[in-house]
Amino acid sequence: MKHEYTVGNYLLDRLSELGIRHMFGVPGDYNLAFLDNVIDYEGMEWVGNRNELNAAYAADGYARINGFAALITTFGVGELSAINGIAGSYAEHVPVVKITGAPTTKVMDNGLYVHHTLGDGKFDHFSRMFQEVTVAQTLLTQENAAQEIDRVLLASMTEKRPVHITLPIDVYDKPANKPESPLHDEVATSNHEALSQMLSELTPMIDKAKQPVILAGYEVNRYENREELLALADKTGIPVTILSGGKGAFNEEHPQFIGVYNGELSAPYLQKRVDEADCIIQIGAKPTDSTTGGFSYNFSDKDLIQITPFSVITTKQKYAPITMKDALLALSERVTQKNSEELNILPLQSQLNQNAFEVKEENIKQNRFFERLSHFMKEKDVLLAEQGTSYYGAATMAIPKNTMFIGQPLWGSIGFTFPALLGSQLADMNRRNILLIGDGSFQLTAQELSTMLDQKIKPIIFLINNDGYTVERAIHGENQAYNDIPMWDYKKLPEVFSPEGKSLTYKVQTETELEEALKAAENNHDCLTFIEVVMHRDDKPELLAQLSKRFAKQNG
Amino acid sequence: MKHEYTVGNYLLDRLSELGIRHMFGVPGDYNLAFLDNVIDYEGMEWVGNRNELNAAYAADGYARINGFAALITTFGVGELSAINGIAGSYAEHVPVVKITGAPTTKVMDNGLYVHHTLGDGKFDHFSRMFQEVTVAQTLLTQENAAQEIDRVLLASMTEKRPVHITLPIDVYDKPANKPESPLHDEVATSNHEALSQMLSELTPMIDKAKQPVILAGYEVNRYENREELLALADKTGIPVTILSGGKGAFNEEHPQFIGVYNGELSAPYLQKRVDEADCIIQIGAKPTDSTTGGFSYNFSDKDLIQITPFSVITTKQKYAPITMKDALLALSERVTQKNSEELNILPLQSQLNQNAFEVKEENIKQNRFFERLSHFMKEKDVLLAEQGTSYYGAATMAIPKNTMFIGQPLWGSIGFTFPALLGSQLADMNRRNILLIGDGSFQLTAQELSTMLDQKIKPIIFLINNDGYTVERAIHGENQAYNDIPMWDYKKLPEVFSPEGKSLTYKVQTETELEEALKAAENNHDCLTFIEVVMHRDDKPELLAQLSKRFAKQNG
Repeated sequence: MKHEYTVGNYLLDRLSELGIRHMFGVPGDYNLAFLDNVIDYEGMEWVGNRNELNAAYAADGYARINGFAALITTFGVGELSAINGIAGSYAEHVPVVKITGAPTTKVMDNGLYVHHTLGDGKFDHFSRMFQEVTVAQTLLTQENAAQEIDRVLLASMTEKRPVHITLPIDVYDKPANKPESPLHDEVATSNHEALSQMLSELTPMIDKAKQPVILAGYEVNRYENREELLALADKTGIPVTILSGGKGAFNEEHPQFIGVYNGELSAPYLQKRVDEADCIIQIGAKPTDSTTGGFSYNFSDKDLIQITPFSVITTKQKYAPITMKDALLALSERVTQKNSEELNILPLQSQLNQNAFEVKEENIKQNRFFERLSHFMKEKDVLLAEQGTSYYGAATMAIPKNTMFIGQPLWGSIGFTFPALLGSQLADMNRRNILLIGDGSFQLTAQELSTMLDQKIKPIIFLINNDGYTVERAIHGENQAYNDIPMWDYKKLPEVFSPEGKSLTYKVQTETELEEALKAAENNHDCLTFIEVVMHRDDKPELLAQLSKRFAKQNG
Repeated sequence: MKHEYTVGNYLLDRLSELGIRHMFGVPGDYNLAFLDNVIDYEGMEWVGNRNELNAAYAADGYARINGFAALITTFGVGELSAINGIAGSYAEHVPVVKITGAPTTKVMDNGLYVHHTLGDGKFDHFSRMFQEVTVAQTLLTQENAAQEIDRVLLASMTEKRPVHITLPIDVYDKPANKPESPLHDEVATSNHEALSQMLSELTPMIDKAKQPVILAGYEVNRYENREELLALADKTGIPVTILSGGKGAFNEEHPQFIGVYNGELSAPYLQKRVDEADCIIQIGAKPTDSTTGGFSYNFSDKDLIQITPFSVITTKQKYAPITMKDALLALSERVTQKNSEELNILPLQSQLNQNAFEVKEENIKQNRFFERLSHFMKEKDVLLAEQGTSYYGAATMAIPKNTMFIGQPLWGSIGFTFPALLGSQLADMNRRNILLIGDGSFQLTAQELSTMLDQKIKPIIFLINNDGYTVERAIHGENQAYNDIPMWDYKKLPEVFSPEGKSLTYKVQTETELEEALKAAENNHDCLTFIEVVMHRDDKPELLAQLSKRFAKQNG
């Protein structure tokens, strides 16, 4: 029996309400019939991925730009292939809705030994695994579907983390009522008493400080509080630094921006300025080994104010519920503007080499590559940098204002950024997407290039070919076989993956060759640009060289 | 401090004792130092895979031929990427040792926010996820390592299923004592009383039966009980059928072999012979939807004897512990030989079209392809067939004796057989490995071709290019976009993935072209053969055509 409005419609309406316009995934017989719904749904495009892990990575990249993403796979095999991607979204606070098409309620109730199961008649193994890496899970039934969909989506909205929905294939076409009111984040309101108590402690504390600093992080991006952060900086005059995962949270051309902090691996001025600050206002930031030079920050906990998505924490007290947005706005109004002369601000812009980049007739080196790239970047670009030489080169590279940055410093799953690029570019076709990825990482998820060409997106891909896992060599086993990878003829991949498709492909080894490729990429508005950049195996950005030594020690 | 004999040595000695000569995996900073041990270990070869899921699939394929396999990944990211492969090994009873390199005990004890974690200072999320898909798990410490390694390996030996070992990177080089006695399966002994009680019930039951049949399954292969099964068949004269997952468990050229049973989708003689049997001796078999034409078997439970790896079950009683081997040997001795005239045996060999295959000048069709392939197969080949047209075409194709068969009918994770081929070929370089895989599945794990070329293995790969997910089209959405995939220029992949490597590559569409490629493959002992076989999108083996209708109904 066909119904006018169904559970499938309800789910798609809610996803659409969250701004989701693309559904990533891989078909399987437990989701096929629902995919008919997706195909038919106006304002929702089906994007079939080459495998499920790539689909999860693509959804993550999409959500980082779009605010929300969804993917669907089949039961068991598909959802487990995707689970590492979902774990990454959980670790890095990216709201992704993972939908799993499941056997019918009847098959499950009867405990049948059907395909894509462990053959034990039990159907909750996999949703239980997802409990570890999602903030809410549900098994939809004809009866509970509307409430349960709303419950898990609200959890995802609030915590900016993934959720897991199991949709038995007999449930999607059952009748449902249209939503009566829009979904809204009910949790995300501040308590006025907590807010005013917070201000009573913090306002004099910040006013009194002589050398305060704002240390911002990735949650400013996730909760879209960039404007409020800017307001706080502008109104108080306090200098701003960020952890690398939070790049894009603050305009790096701003006169109060003093660089990306990396503990003892920061530039000397920056390290001293942060570590000796008498008040650190940490905003939506979480110091991890990868973003602090291996926990080498030396500022004192007693001077630390932590503004988190729903609380403000000092050594004395935790104030909650207070949204980060409300905290930032309230402090902007109450804290007295500082005298900039006394704040010891050395803007990043004045720390940079202001000379024009002069092309040399020599092979490309890592430091020169990133120097050149910083000139290539334009306002509104999205920069993706794979964990490895790419991330650590990009971390300290100055980027223009309104640039978005995608990396995965905490979860650090190699291969992630490549499918993430598919997602981030589809999320906003008006931004130029630029990806930096090493050959070692690229090989894990390379087939997603096929989907990119199929989708006719036009990012610029820099494939750093440095013959293996350079990031691993730097930590241990420089010349060991396990850090070697087979050499591919990378530049031929676009034509293999899309014989009819269009792409602009370069392989460059010298600065002159790079220059030519960059010019062509700059002028190419027609198709994807794929630039293989050959660099020396052991060449690496300075930050990575130093950090890898600390990682080796941490593993000792 | 360097020790003479370490936890790492102990682990590698035990793995070696299990017959493991290759370690699959992907390096990461939490396993690098231990990989030095692996590289140095005599009789153990490191095989770096292109990604972790592929490593798990390769290990599964290796274990199916070798009896045991091991793979190592890094913490979090690596182990979760591999988990779908491990779940497949669990579902299909394949013993794989999954080793995870983890942060140091100190980092974990202090709950540090290090990379490859969820950033919550907790380190047991992932091992907990592995509880769902492994039979034993352990976190090694300097103190417990030897006992714990033995405990989990014994569990894997006994249950023929995967186990999970977390090896903190500070533990591998700690001192250990060499094993004093060999590992042996302590659980796998039968109880004499149970055995004799079982014989008392079963012997008269089987002797009395007029139309008994043996229905064998994949566990006969896993527990290496092929000879005992043959003995039972030879001594009793009872005809043998198998479920498709158990192909290779019984010689298909044997005069008592009556074909692969698929419920109502079997050949009419076979269906009637099994469904009307008055005694079904089910040996190491588990009927699932994929192997029984969607549960369409019609034999009566009251006539069923189930011989499982450690028990014998009748409607009256369960006899345990009895190993499958002991049960088969004891029954072979006690059951009276039947008069073959009365058993209504129509051997598979006499059911087959005995005419020579005559090449026609026309495009290759699925049924003709499998007919031709059955002539191409040779004794001792290993045949791998991907879930989809390949599996269901191969399932009913007669194969020569001593052939091994690898498929994944229960778990059915598409893309599985491609990396599995890497493993199965490395497990025994003296067997010719032949893979059948469709384009839809191939795209998920294609990069492992690079590892195969790097390892210089020489399998024959048939890539069935039929323009998308034909198995899904057969179930639902024949012309829907979600069943389409981008068309690749497959035949160029070997040279892209290994510009210096050697391979023999063909793209064929007609029977004449196929014939030429087969001849070349037959004579090629030098390198890998890659044959792209173009077939019509909607052409499919008859068994799949029928089964897919039943799956569509099951999902209704």
